[in-house]
Amino acid sequence: MSAGDPVNPMTFAERALAFGRDVYSGHGKIEIMPKVSVSSLAEMAVAYTPGVGHVVRHVIAHPEALGEQTARDNMIALVTDGTAVLGLGDVGPRAAIPVMEGKAVMFKALAGIDCVPLCLDARAPDRFCEVVRALEPSFAGINLEDVAAPACFEAVRRLEDSMDVPILHDDQYGTATVVTAAMINALAATGRKVEDCRVVVNGIGAAGTATIHMLTALGVGDIIAVDRYGILDVDDVRAYPHWREIAARTNSAGRRGNLAEAMRGADAFVGLSTRGLVNRAMVRSMAKDPIVFALANPEPEIEPEEAEAAGATLVATGRFDGLNHCNNVLAFPGLMRGAMETRASRISLDMCLAGARAIASHPRLEHALLPSPLDLTLHAGVAEAVGREAIRLDIARRFPEVGEIAEKTLLLAKLVNSRA
Amino acid sequence: MSAGDPVNPMTFAERALAFGRDVYSGHGKIEIMPKVSVSSLAEMAVAYTPGVGHVVRHVIAHPEALGEQTARDNMIALVTDGTAVLGLGDVGPRAAIPVMEGKAVMFKALAGIDCVPLCLDARAPDRFCEVVRALEPSFAGINLEDVAAPACFEAVRRLEDSMDVPILHDDQYGTATVVTAAMINALAATGRKVEDCRVVVNGIGAAGTATIHMLTALGVGDIIAVDRYGILDVDDVRAYPHWREIAARTNSAGRRGNLAEAMRGADAFVGLSTRGLVNRAMVRSMAKDPIVFALANPEPEIEPEEAEAAGATLVATGRFDGLNHCNNVLAFPGLMRGAMETRASRISLDMCLAGARAIASHPRLEHALLPSPLDLTLHAGVAEAVGREAIRLDIARRFPEVGEIAEKTLLLAKLVNSRA
Repeated sequence: MSAGDPVNPMTFAERALAFGRDVYSGHGKIEIMPKVSVSSLAEMAVAYTPGVGHVVRHVIAHPEALGEQTARDNMIALVTDGTAVLGLGDVGPRAAIPVMEGKAVMFKALAGIDCVPLCLDARAPDRFCEVVRALEPSFAGINLEDVAAPACFEAVRRLEDSMDVPILHDDQYGTATVVTAAMINALAATGRKVEDCRVVVNGIGAAGTATIHMLTALGVGDIIAVDRYGILDVDDVRAYPHWREIAARTNSAGRRGNLAEAMRGADAFVGLSTRGLVNRAMVRSMAKDPIVFALANPEPEIEPEEAEAAGATLVATGRFDGLNHCNNVLAFPGLMRGAMETRASRISLDMCLAGARAIASHPRLEHALLPSPLDLTLHAGVAEAVGREAIRLDIARRFPEVGEIAEKTLLLAKLVNSRA
Repeated sequence: MSAGDPVNPMTFAERALAFGRDVYSGHGKIEIMPKVSVSSLAEMAVAYTPGVGHVVRHVIAHPEALGEQTARDNMIALVTDGTAVLGLGDVGPRAAIPVMEGKAVMFKALAGIDCVPLCLDARAPDRFCEVVRALEPSFAGINLEDVAAPACFEAVRRLEDSMDVPILHDDQYGTATVVTAAMINALAATGRKVEDCRVVVNGIGAAGTATIHMLTALGVGDIIAVDRYGILDVDDVRAYPHWREIAARTNSAGRRGNLAEAMRGADAFVGLSTRGLVNRAMVRSMAKDPIVFALANPEPEIEPEEAEAAGATLVATGRFDGLNHCNNVLAFPGLMRGAMETRASRISLDMCLAGARAIASHPRLEHALLPSPLDLTLHAGVAEAVGREAIRLDIARRFPEVGEIAEKTLLLAKLVNSRA
């Protein structure tokens, strides 16, 4: 069905619901499809039994053949405990399924990755990590999704320590990668140098924390981290441990106060918080030609029209309906594909930064801050850059030729789109 | 690719390996496919974000809408710990993947069920059950596969007690259902009455145990259970607890001895054990017109030609290459679909028996013992019979009209085959 039919009188919300409900062959957005036909007993004997017996014996004798005999090396698990679904909070694992199916569609359509959504009745970090660890034989990568901070930090750490496949917490490093890409282009567009900028990051959850790590790695001169009690303060006893850790690494000038204080004179605002927290006066108080990334989902910290009216030179939201969408769908397909193709042991900050630079430098429409997520060469390019960085960092266990990862990513995504 | 190309000089084992390796879009036999296209930003906004936000809010307000908004109600997990893979034993979860993918192909192609293979690094029953339980939000059914006895019995019991979706241990009840269907037809073909028969079941693992339960429920007069120490004996201290339980329910005449003793004068032999355990002399010692089901996989207890040469009237193996294949692929798609469509709380012995009767009475080729697994109306008929039995037993939570389950099953399977 067409989602954007102009003669369709349904509201957007109605269309979103109809989209999940009305597809052929039952409901939902994904299905598990055979790649092989079974139209004769001979075919069934090869594809199922006794054929699989020969394959099992073969992979027992040659464990390295598992990758060519099964879909395992192209398959990831998309796991959540449902504790931080979109901006809606702890809605539980069942209510998370629609998000997870939508994301599985993106992984396959944009990078050819087979993605199994698993909404787990097991809270991060303890039981959740036990369950995810047990999944390792079946998957070449793990994407954590919608797991609340601070449990997600501990979960990622434990999984990275105990599993031999790359772990991507997309809410952390997918988002941070796209924000960093957008910041690279926004600073360039407004004639700024990275090291001279002051950037306010509001909302120090999973995404905000990772974004601060990446903007620091990018070389941003002054970062001010803000959450509900104002500018993060190492002495604030109300603060989470990860807030105090961030406080110690940011705000070198020792500013104090609320979000309005933080924004005064700042070059850029990055909102990863809640709708409506920013007003016109706060934007007016920023430095000349201010940059405003109001990325709260689904409603931004300030509506783009408001921010522009208050003098913002460059405004981005997380939504696809604006020109400057800054959504992690630009990053996660390529981050995961790059790590998978190199059998990277993890997805490091440097790999994400390589991905961010690839996104920032990819061809885009004039006046657009970032490329389109529908541009399949984007995801191929990100995967290539991430994979090459994994090789450079010496955490790769497979070494594709230059250009090979991009070529494979593009081919697989095109194959999906020619059949979907 | 064609598996049965007569001009192809490869051996069967080579074809089985090539089949896994050579398919398009990477390796293996299954993939996770989108049901929706994402060829514009408007479509992406509906299928992914912010569209999924509306769907999540909708299912929070209306939890019963999850089934129509997601693929969850058509999706099952196929779980193993890799401890009893085919006849190869404890080969571990990775080596089990080829079997599991082959089986996922069967579920989708024969009954339209989306089946996710999960090979778990978690041993049954303890850790395995913890992990499987945590998967419940994402799945409408669980198929246990290749979990060794006796741990599998405890695992099924715990999962049935703690989960709200049907659990099928296919090695137990899938196999038992097909053996029972074959026995119904074999007894009829040789002019026997169920209650007057003596049946020897050799190999009292997962399949043998369930087969004895089902043949008892069918009304077989005298069942003799045999395993490695001979006819099961309640006093044998070497025996597993489940062997002693079976011993107490079988062998009413109190026979003692080895397999050869057990087979003397028996009407039927059901082998669920190991290749080569039966010789011609043992078949010759059976009653007139003996029935021999040599179902060990991949090599039977006695080759069909040997059994026939020794006077067996009716011989079946578990392989597709013989006329009388007796493989659980005839049963598991319909058993699971019938349970899913009625939201049955479990898959009971009576539901399996209803399935067995549906298989036995389904149209088949002249001289064939059972119908073809490629006959999609078979699986539709089994699903319908199983679902109706769930309703009759009052363990259904959904009540399709008569014929509705069969119609849906057939439609979904045909849709798969028109696209595969």
